[in-house]
Amino acid sequence: MPSPAKKRDTGCPFAFALDTFGDRWTLLVVRDLMFRGKTTYGEFLDSAEGVATNVLADRLKYLEEEGIIDKSRDPENRRRNIYTLTEKGVELTPIMLEVVRWSAKHDPHTAVPKPFLKRIKTDRDALLAEIRAKFIKS
Amino acid sequence: MPSPAKKRDTGCPFAFALDTFGDRWTLLVVRDLMFRGKTTYGEFLDSAEGVATNVLADRLKYLEEEGIIDKSRDPENRRRNIYTLTEKGVELTPIMLEVVRWSAKHDPHTAVPKPFLKRIKTDRDALLAEIRAKFIKS
Repeated sequence: MPSPAKKRDTGCPFAFALDTFGDRWTLLVVRDLMFRGKTTYGEFLDSAEGVATNVLADRLKYLEEEGIIDKSRDPENRRRNIYTLTEKGVELTPIMLEVVRWSAKHDPHTAVPKPFLKRIKTDRDALLAEIRAKFIKS
Repeated sequence: MPSPAKKRDTGCPFAFALDTFGDRWTLLVVRDLMFRGKTTYGEFLDSAEGVATNVLADRLKYLEEEGIIDKSRDPENRRRNIYTLTEKGVELTPIMLEVVRWSAKHDPHTAVPKPFLKRIKTDRDALLAEIRAKFIKS
């Protein structure tokens, strides 16, 4: 399981996006933060996909270095970190919603809940604002 | 350089999207078709990123199997194939435009042309229709 590719600075937006968050396990962390209310290492580890502990630790470090997530000590348990999306991370939401929409349409095994899909189609702006409000205090 | 991951049918929309088109070289082909007017093997090979011939051939085959691209014989040169995006492939456009927007904002080395970025922000529907019209005859 290789680490995310080293950035090559070609200026291509697709290469940049893939290098920043397009690895399977970085995307899993972004998904869990953005849509599943998960915030801790243990919760990410608990996802159905079965990420290995060292891989998860590597990806959390990478996402922090890339400025997509921030971590802070959990005030209720000083030995635990709480992760959150930064502004740069929250701004991935429109991409993520379009991916959900496309995959829900084309994946016969899709697990996307119908009500969520409906909100993406008919109530997108409110959904974006709602997700944003979870991470960015205005 | 591994082939795109075998689909695992977890139902996760992000896994599905990564497995279908999220490999670096499949994404390059989609980009070249969608935004750069490229249609032939030789043109894809000519992209700045320097994809290897066997990798490109593998990715074209994969994208065809996944129903993202179609190929047909070039009527002007029967030894050459012309590639095009299918309906499923064209429907990737909203994802691609959001990726361009995000990367243009966050990549200090971005090569995204400013007028194109402006169109994404202010003229998105017309841009989507224009790209669609290149591939889907109504």
